[in-house]
Amino acid sequence: MLPNDLFASLVVVLEWFSVAVFAITGALVASRKQMDIFGFVLLGTVTGIGGGTVRDVMLGDLPVFWVKDQSYLIVCSVVATFIYFTAHIPQSRYRLLLWLDAVGLALVAVIGAERGLAANAGPVVAITMGVITAAFGGIIRDVLGGESPLILRREIYVTAAMAGAALFVALMETGAPRAGAMAAAFSVAFVIRGLAIRYEWSLPPYKPRAGRTPEDIARLGRDEKP
Amino acid sequence: MLPNDLFASLVVVLEWFSVAVFAITGALVASRKQMDIFGFVLLGTVTGIGGGTVRDVMLGDLPVFWVKDQSYLIVCSVVATFIYFTAHIPQSRYRLLLWLDAVGLALVAVIGAERGLAANAGPVVAITMGVITAAFGGIIRDVLGGESPLILRREIYVTAAMAGAALFVALMETGAPRAGAMAAAFSVAFVIRGLAIRYEWSLPPYKPRAGRTPEDIARLGRDEKP
Amino acid sequence: MLPNDLFASLVVVLEWFSVAVFAITGALVASRKQMDIFGFVLLGTVTGIGGGTVRDVMLGDLPVFWVKDQSYLIVCSVVATFIYFTAHIPQSRYRLLLWLDAVGLALVAVIGAERGLAANAGPVVAITMGVITAAFGGIIRDVLGGESPLILRREIYVTAAMAGAALFVALMETGAPRAGAMAAAFSVAFVIRGLAIRYEWSLPPYKPRAGRTPEDIARLGRDEKP
Repeated sequence: MLPNDLFASLVVVLEWFSVAVFAITGALVASRKQMDIFGFVLLGTVTGIGGGTVRDVMLGDLPVFWVKDQSYLIVCSVVATFIYFTAHIPQSRYRLLLWLDAVGLALVAVIGAERGLAANAGPVVAITMGVITAAFGGIIRDVLGGESPLILRREIYVTAAMAGAALFVALMETGAPRAGAMAAAFSVAFVIRGLAIRYEWSLPPYKPRAGRTPEDIARLGRDEKP
Repeated sequence: MLPNDLFASLVVVLEWFSVAVFAITGALVASRKQMDIFGFVLLGTVTGIGGGTVRDVMLGDLPVFWVKDQSYLIVCSVVATFIYFTAHIPQSRYRLLLWLDAVGLALVAVIGAERGLAANAGPVVAITMGVITAAFGGIIRDVLGGESPLILRREIYVTAAMAGAALFVALMETGAPRAGAMAAAFSVAFVIRGLAIRYEWSLPPYKPRAGRTPEDIARLGRDEKP
Repeated sequence: MLPNDLFASLVVVLEWFSVAVFAITGALVASRKQMDIFGFVLLGTVTGIGGGTVRDVMLGDLPVFWVKDQSYLIVCSVVATFIYFTAHIPQSRYRLLLWLDAVGLALVAVIGAERGLAANAGPVVAITMGVITAAFGGIIRDVLGGESPLILRREIYVTAAMAGAALFVALMETGAPRAGAMAAAFSVAFVIRGLAIRYEWSLPPYKPRAGRTPEDIARLGRDEKP
């Protein structure tokens, strides 16, 4: 078992890593849209820090984390600028990135849930904080980048974050040691996401049934408002 | 006249009802997009609690309401899951939903305005809080769901919320009793929205005039920036 | 040199001016989308106050500025309503608007950076606050208006805001007098944006290179997740 200080440092380092990986995914969307360098920096930064920012605002933990410690902004800018100038990323690296992103996802899901518990929120709120931290950076990236948002895709992404966050909260409720709970929850989230990447898993979509064909739904959608 | 406690309980119950109805509309967008079950839960929840969340953040009333009381998250998740597994919703039910949503709209417009007054905000701010609570859940739903946002549509929706919130604020300023002001304002918002549903009312759109044809505007739009 | 009181009043007046100009750009998007009058008011208001709102939330300076002083909401509503009823805006006025917007951009970039420094944030955070205040109103406008977001465009807009905010922060760090630093930073941001308008400058977009053609990126984009 690691001593507490070392463990805390490890978490900080891994959190930085996650922010940087998310920033890369933002910069790659910028490259796909052929933005200029400031588009790269803006989209990379928003993606890197977006999830944690929404979490902090919801919890009322203000100012948000990157106002308290500006190095997060610097990391995102440097990473996005680097991607802008990188000659090309070979296909094998995209695959690597996908796996690094899975590490980031698993990590911030657990860290987000822990922040929720630390703020004395209920277990459902804590799990939600894990999901927000893991998913909202990508959601904001997709909305600003003009792409179909993450939640429309049926990849197992939010699911992995939710599973990890839920396990962490459950273990903490039963009095498990913090480091152990984090490690177990991280592993579960990472394995689920990893299997989804490896075997291209996805969850079943909603299937229209008799009396509710896509056409019906589309037409009704117009009425249905609200 | 109801005693104060009973009245407060009634407001809480009706607020729950509104959150649940809004969550259904989010889940229905998810069904139209054929998302998986977590897409339903995410979009249903964001729609159910989105308006109140933006309101709480603007007022600085943090953490937001669903962090303080996690049952709102549970309601949204249960409702969205139920919609996912429901075999089909017959068309008559969509019509019912439209009317339930009108009740929700009228209710949260008044509650939102009251929260604004309770925070000692000015009357214009209080009315704005009513509109935010009623409309922003749907706006976020549409942006995340990749649909044309509510405010682009010319249905009388924001108008009804604004009328209800404005009447409530005006009555409170003149010293009317709180319960009576709420009931009157709710009725006005509901009737306006109801008439719009029943008779398919809409407000006149902006009409391009000589020298400002849509083509001109579109072209200039590019210059005119930001 | 102006006395301090007069200078503070001047800043307030100019800030109002910026909010009004931004609200006009929001109302013009509403006119392009042929919204009704409440669409004009909603989109105009969100554009006018959006950047400052995001800044205040990030800094934890709550309630946000327009809750403390409701006249900002009134200005935005009046301006948007005026645009709705204005018979037509001749093309020469669009050009004028473009230049007024440049003034607004330069001004709020400096004011935003100052708010950051006033909140004891680091220099990078302060610059970011300037960029947020200048750019996020337009970003929210474009997302809600269903248009291609500001950051996808390669105009020199964010760049001008960043340059002005950075110069202001640098001058303040070296102990320059506040009014002088503001004037210099404003001028730099305005000149950069003005030159971009006048000569239709833009920054180089990301260029796909060998082994990373747009098709590759698009295809990989699907894999790449996250």
